Amino acid sequence: MFTRLVESLGATEKLSAVFSDDSVLQAMLDFEAALARAEARCGVIPASAAASITEAARAEGFDTAELARLSLRAGTPAIPVVKMLTARVRAIDPAAAGFVHWGATSQDVADTALVLLLRQTRRILQNDHERTLAALRRLSEQHAATVMLARTLLQPAPPVTFGLKAAGWCAAVRRGWDRVSSRFDEALCLQFGGASGTLAALENRGLAVSEALKSELGLKLPDGPWHGYRDRLAALMAALSIYTASLGKIALDVALLMQFEVGEAAEPGGDGRGGSSSMPHKRNPTACMLALASAKRVPGLLADFVAGMVQEHERAVGGWQAEWPLVYGIVQSAGVALESMAEVSEGLTVDVARMRANIDSTRGAIFAERAVMMLAPELGREAARQKVEQAIEDTGMPPDLPGLRTPEDYLGSAEAFRRRLLEGDK
Amino acid sequence: MFTRLVESLGATEKLSAVFSDDSVLQAMLDFEAALARAEARCGVIPASAAASITEAARAEGFDTAELARLSLRAGTPAIPVVKMLTARVRAIDPAAAGFVHWGATSQDVADTALVLLLRQTRRILQNDHERTLAALRRLSEQHAATVMLARTLLQPAPPVTFGLKAAGWCAAVRRGWDRVSSRFDEALCLQFGGASGTLAALENRGLAVSEALKSELGLKLPDGPWHGYRDRLAALMAALSIYTASLGKIALDVALLMQFEVGEAAEPGGDGRGGSSSMPHKRNPTACMLALASAKRVPGLLADFVAGMVQEHERAVGGWQAEWPLVYGIVQSAGVALESMAEVSEGLTVDVARMRANIDSTRGAIFAERAVMMLAPELGREAARQKVEQAIEDTGMPPDLPGLRTPEDYLGSAEAFRRRLLEGDK
Amino acid sequence: MFTRLVESLGATEKLSAVFSDDSVLQAMLDFEAALARAEARCGVIPASAAASITEAARAEGFDTAELARLSLRAGTPAIPVVKMLTARVRAIDPAAAGFVHWGATSQDVADTALVLLLRQTRRILQNDHERTLAALRRLSEQHAATVMLARTLLQPAPPVTFGLKAAGWCAAVRRGWDRVSSRFDEALCLQFGGASGTLAALENRGLAVSEALKSELGLKLPDGPWHGYRDRLAALMAALSIYTASLGKIALDVALLMQFEVGEAAEPGGDGRGGSSSMPHKRNPTACMLALASAKRVPGLLADFVAGMVQEHERAVGGWQAEWPLVYGIVQSAGVALESMAEVSEGLTVDVARMRANIDSTRGAIFAERAVMMLAPELGREAARQKVEQAIEDTGMPPDLPGLRTPEDYLGSAEAFRRRLLEGDK
Amino acid sequence: MFTRLVESLGATEKLSAVFSDDSVLQAMLDFEAALARAEARCGVIPASAAASITEAARAEGFDTAELARLSLRAGTPAIPVVKMLTARVRAIDPAAAGFVHWGATSQDVADTALVLLLRQTRRILQNDHERTLAALRRLSEQHAATVMLARTLLQPAPPVTFGLKAAGWCAAVRRGWDRVSSRFDEALCLQFGGASGTLAALENRGLAVSEALKSELGLKLPDGPWHGYRDRLAALMAALSIYTASLGKIALDVALLMQFEVGEAAEPGGDGRGGSSSMPHKRNPTACMLALASAKRVPGLLADFVAGMVQEHERAVGGWQAEWPLVYGIVQSAGVALESMAEVSEGLTVDVARMRANIDSTRGAIFAERAVMMLAPELGREAARQKVEQAIEDTGMPPDLPGLRTPEDYLGSAEAFRRRLLEGDK
Repeated sequence: MFTRLVESLGATEKLSAVFSDDSVLQAMLDFEAALARAEARCGVIPASAAASITEAARAEGFDTAELARLSLRAGTPAIPVVKMLTARVRAIDPAAAGFVHWGATSQDVADTALVLLLRQTRRILQNDHERTLAALRRLSEQHAATVMLARTLLQPAPPVTFGLKAAGWCAAVRRGWDRVSSRFDEALCLQFGGASGTLAALENRGLAVSEALKSELGLKLPDGPWHGYRDRLAALMAALSIYTASLGKIALDVALLMQFEVGEAAEPGGDGRGGSSSMPHKRNPTACMLALASAKRVPGLLADFVAGMVQEHERAVGGWQAEWPLVYGIVQSAGVALESMAEVSEGLTVDVARMRANIDSTRGAIFAERAVMMLAPELGREAARQKVEQAIEDTGMPPDLPGLRTPEDYLGSAEAFRRRLLEGDK
Repeated sequence: MFTRLVESLGATEKLSAVFSDDSVLQAMLDFEAALARAEARCGVIPASAAASITEAARAEGFDTAELARLSLRAGTPAIPVVKMLTARVRAIDPAAAGFVHWGATSQDVADTALVLLLRQTRRILQNDHERTLAALRRLSEQHAATVMLARTLLQPAPPVTFGLKAAGWCAAVRRGWDRVSSRFDEALCLQFGGASGTLAALENRGLAVSEALKSELGLKLPDGPWHGYRDRLAALMAALSIYTASLGKIALDVALLMQFEVGEAAEPGGDGRGGSSSMPHKRNPTACMLALASAKRVPGLLADFVAGMVQEHERAVGGWQAEWPLVYGIVQSAGVALESMAEVSEGLTVDVARMRANIDSTRGAIFAERAVMMLAPELGREAARQKVEQAIEDTGMPPDLPGLRTPEDYLGSAEAFRRRLLEGDK
Repeated sequence: MFTRLVESLGATEKLSAVFSDDSVLQAMLDFEAALARAEARCGVIPASAAASITEAARAEGFDTAELARLSLRAGTPAIPVVKMLTARVRAIDPAAAGFVHWGATSQDVADTALVLLLRQTRRILQNDHERTLAALRRLSEQHAATVMLARTLLQPAPPVTFGLKAAGWCAAVRRGWDRVSSRFDEALCLQFGGASGTLAALENRGLAVSEALKSELGLKLPDGPWHGYRDRLAALMAALSIYTASLGKIALDVALLMQFEVGEAAEPGGDGRGGSSSMPHKRNPTACMLALASAKRVPGLLADFVAGMVQEHERAVGGWQAEWPLVYGIVQSAGVALESMAEVSEGLTVDVARMRANIDSTRGAIFAERAVMMLAPELGREAARQKVEQAIEDTGMPPDLPGLRTPEDYLGSAEAFRRRLLEGDK
Repeated sequence: MFTRLVESLGATEKLSAVFSDDSVLQAMLDFEAALARAEARCGVIPASAAASITEAARAEGFDTAELARLSLRAGTPAIPVVKMLTARVRAIDPAAAGFVHWGATSQDVADTALVLLLRQTRRILQNDHERTLAALRRLSEQHAATVMLARTLLQPAPPVTFGLKAAGWCAAVRRGWDRVSSRFDEALCLQFGGASGTLAALENRGLAVSEALKSELGLKLPDGPWHGYRDRLAALMAALSIYTASLGKIALDVALLMQFEVGEAAEPGGDGRGGSSSMPHKRNPTACMLALASAKRVPGLLADFVAGMVQEHERAVGGWQAEWPLVYGIVQSAGVALESMAEVSEGLTVDVARMRANIDSTRGAIFAERAVMMLAPELGREAARQKVEQAIEDTGMPPDLPGLRTPEDYLGSAEAFRRRLLEGDK
């Protein structure tokens, strides 16, 4: 249940277990077993056959390496899986062998298996999401009054609070997961249509078997088979990608704050983290880096998925067969980003003094707009603006008015926005 | 209000009008005028200044070519727009000039203008969506009993009805727009945060001005300024891309059905459509082609948008400045695809006889699965399967059993799925 | 040495062996051993240390699962590899342990290992390329005189020869590999710069060790360390992607020709190929489908790679750490496409009679342009054109002039182009 | 000849002129005129007709807005252009009208026009490339001895010289253009194949006319018509994208050096540059930002182009019709990035004192590796390493050995690499 070295920076252990050969195979076998039981319940196949198929449908003992090899030949893992399963069923109950995969098509098992695997990933991702959300909320509350430089185009700007910054992160994470969650709700539905999407082999019992099958698997029954319609999966992939990109934004902010010259925050480091093979002194933004690397991988994977949606007729030639590695890549990228940013959020070190020192080091430059406002009542706005601009031209700073450089006095609606962001837009 | 030649296959006239220089400029000016009125209502600036700014904020007479040139220098269109607007206000009311853009930052006007333009595009897209949806529903109802070949991996498969096929198209279109519509709801919100996203220049009146401003513009007030958070826009771009890809899937199906060798359907042709400069005989799938070309452009534009979401601190250096051409490209692609497929859906010619003839020409090969089922009661399933496979090996066809090749008798749940698809999953 | 089930349609067995844990680890160990020997040759470390390091640097017995786990923690596989290797060296020669990885940085070993793996993939890809190229050339020669319909926008057009079509495929394959090959030449170079890209730890012997090291490994010495410069790899990824897309074009042509209604060509089928789990009669374009699926995956992977090139300073935070799965995905996609199309090219069945029958079935419609030319000498061009257009409007066909419908007489420069394409542009 | 507001941050004035309606139309007319002359030279059409067509083929007076409208209907700009041109020819020489576009197909004129436009862009891009290359070389020479921090993962690392850094930039620019240039050489070739790519309408004179036509236009004659083969264009798009990404890397480095807290370099600012609408004090990295925005747009556009390469038969339905806006977007992005970075390179301010001060402010932390080396002769390597690591654990710094912190003494092969990078790998 481990990750391969070639993708070791882009896959978590837990998600690798979900997409391990045994787990993928078991998801396919779960479909076949549930199908047999559903068909038995509807009187399509004998109950004894369903029992035998269920008994045989356990991943242990299958030669998954051989399965992978045969899948490439067949162009789908479903054909060799059904063949191997049938052989196992035949060994224990010859009469049942003919009922394996009855009325189904390869894509029914492949797609439903993918859906079952995605349901597992949802729980894993949700756990790290909730850790992250809670930690960012705590950071925001703790630092509601911690002033720091805003930075726009990487240049200093009038102050914000770190609480506001963390609230922005928190809100992005919440919005991101809300979309992911509703897209999971939409996408976790049964695929079952048979050869042409009509369930013709089941005659007039297609819908009844579909109902029974979705209950067996705990999935939703969609409006119809979706062999050629990948929009629900695409919408889920898009939501995961967008969420991952939002995590990347937080990671970038933290990595920038961790710069030696800025020094306002640091990710926790700890066990095996942040070292350098040539520079023992370094405290690297390793977790942020992993989240950033993940955010760099999702856009293209998403593009490929969306491009692949343009599929031929009832089942495509290439479009859907391209999907599994794309789904895998997006899910793993989201997983690494979430696991990394949960760790960062929970262990972030904040240097409140350095934040204030960095404001002070700008020697008032960021308060130019405020200086205009302070001078305006006396001089009029235009004259105030000219006076400030002249001072900046001469000295690089606005005039040093009393109280001008007190960041706490120039926060505007920062606290109001912070609270709104933590609450969410309704 | 016309499209440029270099993008003439990728832009509609109506959407080109929305994104014309005058329209883009007016959207920016609308923000500035609404801001002035909102600030006047809140007592931040004099009412007379708001009136003068509103009066001056009309796109007529601005030198938009010069504006575009200055925008590239400034790195944002907002700076030259504000400067030109200020000059106009000064000309009619010198005292008001200092209140232009008061408390706002460049990205406030740029982002809100984009949102206002997107609101206009929504109406245009929705109109073509509704045309398409209604036409596909009609096609599905008309052809509920029209049998045709299913095709999987571009090979013949057991029959479906054209009504089922059109219902699948219809459902994809409906699901696509539902997502687009809910993402428009989410994304059409005000951007207003000032230099650092705190509205510090407005002191404690930031939220009040925000409320007044969103009312002036008829937009939602989000949880906070979103200068560095592009997820709402990204989610809208994703929904539009996915919808466009679904339209591309329909276009591909139609183009494949229009093949001379298949000949089962044809797009309407008509005024200026479908010709060839060298082959006067040709009836090209021109509208489908345009939809397909659109579907080929959205994935990468979406990828760029999502990649651009990883933005630095309170305002990014490059990420959001990359957005306008991406949004423009996605919206135009969606628009061309919708306009094209509305035309195709409303004017599609269906050759019912050819559909049946194509089934017949397979001489039963697609009914192999059915032959097994017909023989099973007598021979048992395994023997039936073997007999059919032997026949196929010998003759390329299953045994010619009575009634085997009647497509109407092998439609399974086609009609049930058709009705579900037209209703939608709830 | 097998592929995982989740990517079984997107990975070949041979390339999976190259990117197996043992192989990836061995490539990293090869770097460390070669580095030690190079440093010994230059007098930087003792010869005995180099011998011990070389002895220990064998992948057997390393716990690669643990390595993968530690890599995610460390943010690079290099740190745990160096640590494990050092422990092994210490066990056999304590004095040598301190010389492991001397003067190098993590990215030196990671990048050079990737280059060594890419060199292995080159041979595998080249073999399938040469098979494909030769087979397409044979097809072109065999069918130099086989007439068939051209098809533009999926509609019939004046005839071509299948020899010309195959020559077009062949030329695309040759151009594709030429670019891949020259990009391999460029990209297969040593990475060696130490912590900051100056090899400071080696004092003034950095270049000498570099020279020795590249000789040990059989790589080129580049202009300088390229930790933050990924353009050579990007250019290779682009060339592989473009080549894969060209293979996808061929696969699409074949899949379209294999349509039951067209029936002009078929891929070979054979062992485990082309079946259907629900439709025993089907002959699916399975190999073409795999190539098409590969072509659908490369564009986004390439986009991610290029987006990742925008890297910070001497070593990036996220950009290069995203690369391995992208490189892996592109190489595997190219490999699957090549393996598939080699098989298709070598075993393609061509139905010469059906090609002619399909021409005939257009009943002259494709010869409209020719009819104008035949009538022009007598009627003048304008009158000829009008007459033909009138006939098409009336009957859907041009006038049936003697010889008009003989495809062999309307091939223009088909044979001349065929020969040029087989020769290549110089 | 100006850019539109919606893309004003993503298009240069010079390239906008190349892709203006008049220029695009003229390129198409140039093809038609050259074709007529070539055919006259080969005796295919009368010399008088060629003269009349050449006379009429001037963009002045064409209604390009109407052309754009008709292009969307026709699915290609070629059809309405040929129709309008024919009408113009008829007005001055009725006998010549029938010879317009003789033997050519829509894609011949569209593709060759694109090639002619790309040839114009090459000159514009090359000019800015040469400016950039020369300026970076100067910077490298001037600062061969200027020490500064290296930064890896955004953390300080042992010193480099700014000369080395600039040499790395310079080499990337040179490699980037070398690839672009060779891909231009490959891609700037004639498209001429007629309806099916056989030039059948020209009977046996197709190659002769091709030769004459390529000479008229000053283009190369490729191995054959390439209507369905877009690999040469794709390779050019890839080279331009990769070059743009390398410029983005330089822009990111400069923007990071410009951070207030770092302050080691600054782009020139100047006319209209670097301002802020709300913060008069700011000196923004505006030019770098534009280059970064460009680098963010190219990956997806490239992905779309490569995905579009999978084209049907002799001419595709959607694939090539998607190309123009993609090519336009990539070229403009490259143009903006080059124009911006030429300006940045030529005007970059370097703060040598700040660079040294930033090294000093690390108080030796970056010299940990060096401390090990200095202590090793006395203590042995292992003991030296332990002593340094202990010191770092205790104080965050290595022991303060004499000369340890002199950056000039720890530059290794920096100068050697700098010279190699300026020379290029051969």
